[in-house]
Amino acid sequence: MNIDMDRMKKQICFIEHLDRLKQVIRQNLLMNESRRENSAEHSWHIATMAMVLAEYAPHELDQLRVLKMLLVHDVIEIEAGDTFCYDVEGNKGKEERERLAADQVFGLLPSDLAADFRAIWDEFEQGDTPEARFANALDRFQVLLQNFNTGGGTWRIHNIEKKQVIQRMLPIKTGAPSLWPVVESCLEEACDQGMLKDTVASQE
Amino acid sequence: MNIDMDRMKKQICFIEHLDRLKQVIRQNLLMNESRRENSAEHSWHIATMAMVLAEYAPHELDQLRVLKMLLVHDVIEIEAGDTFCYDVEGNKGKEERERLAADQVFGLLPSDLAADFRAIWDEFEQGDTPEARFANALDRFQVLLQNFNTGGGTWRIHNIEKKQVIQRMLPIKTGAPSLWPVVESCLEEACDQGMLKDTVASQE
Ligand SMILES: [Ca+2]
Repeated sequence: MNIDMDRMKKQICFIEHLDRLKQVIRQNLLMNESRRENSAEHSWHIATMAMVLAEYAPHELDQLRVLKMLLVHDVIEIEAGDTFCYDVEGNKGKEERERLAADQVFGLLPSDLAADFRAIWDEFEQGDTPEARFANALDRFQVLLQNFNTGGGTWRIHNIEKKQVIQRMLPIKTGAPSLWPVVESCLEEACDQGMLKDTVASQE
Repeated sequence: MNIDMDRMKKQICFIEHLDRLKQVIRQNLLMNESRRENSAEHSWHIATMAMVLAEYAPHELDQLRVLKMLLVHDVIEIEAGDTFCYDVEGNKGKEERERLAADQVFGLLPSDLAADFRAIWDEFEQGDTPEARFANALDRFQVLLQNFNTGGGTWRIHNIEKKQVIQRMLPIKTGAPSLWPVVESCLEEACDQGMLKDTVASQE
């Protein structure tokens, strides 16, 4: 067994760096409303969801690829921070900021692994493969459940309208279409219960 | 598309229940020492570690199985809580307590998925397959890195001795032998720096 210690050191350094994702705080609350969620536990949640909901992918997927994307998709937030999806200003320059963050974070790894991780992250971001579309769908679906289970959560706090949420949830319609009826019924109930503004209805 | 709504409801209920793992607090600290770690973010960390360290498995493994075990291994703590590994009293009855917790938590799922998840958890616990041994090795290795990077962490707080830690780390020797030299050198340095009691040395 011939171990390249320089290589192993880089890998361990990256692993230690990963610990910082536990301190990146997202907008949405835990379901018991005790605090906001961090990006590390969020990533665990959606990866485990992928195991539970695998059958709702539109066809047989490479499940390993889905899990890898879900585990890695937020790692760049260690450098770039979490950008709230409905924050128009904050989202300007987000792509460029995140690309630079990806260079930095994945650059800690030995070059072959850096390329692997970068390809996984790029695939998720581009959303062109069925695996990436399913992974993106779960990322959105989790936020729906978090908000729906916390009396509206960030929808209510930030006075979000139903049509904005539908726009945001559209990746579910393509990536995991069987879940779409659940999205629709959650949003309807959310409006009925005043968790979410139904602008169209309120204009009548 | 014919969706069994009763089945889907159970799956979503389980997913919502998973949120509670974010509130199960472990003994060890985050690397910046700001707070103790929770079991959900810990699970994310070791699953991602499995991607980084895959090459140190003793031979080619089913990586999907490894990731599934790491994502699921602590879910039973939602019911059973986290038991500190050096707490002799707390570890009495742990197995039975965790088995009952597994019945409860996985019992929320439709029966086929409940059986799948239970088999994944059982495999990790029994540690009889190379995949389970590698997964167990990473679970231990992460705690080593957390403690080593926090001036001794729980070793120091609970006055743990080197020989106890070596005992605890042994699964790394079998599950990911290439990492064993790192364990040895970390423990030696930890003793030198007073993070960990070296009983044998201090008796001389
Ligand atoms: Ca544990």
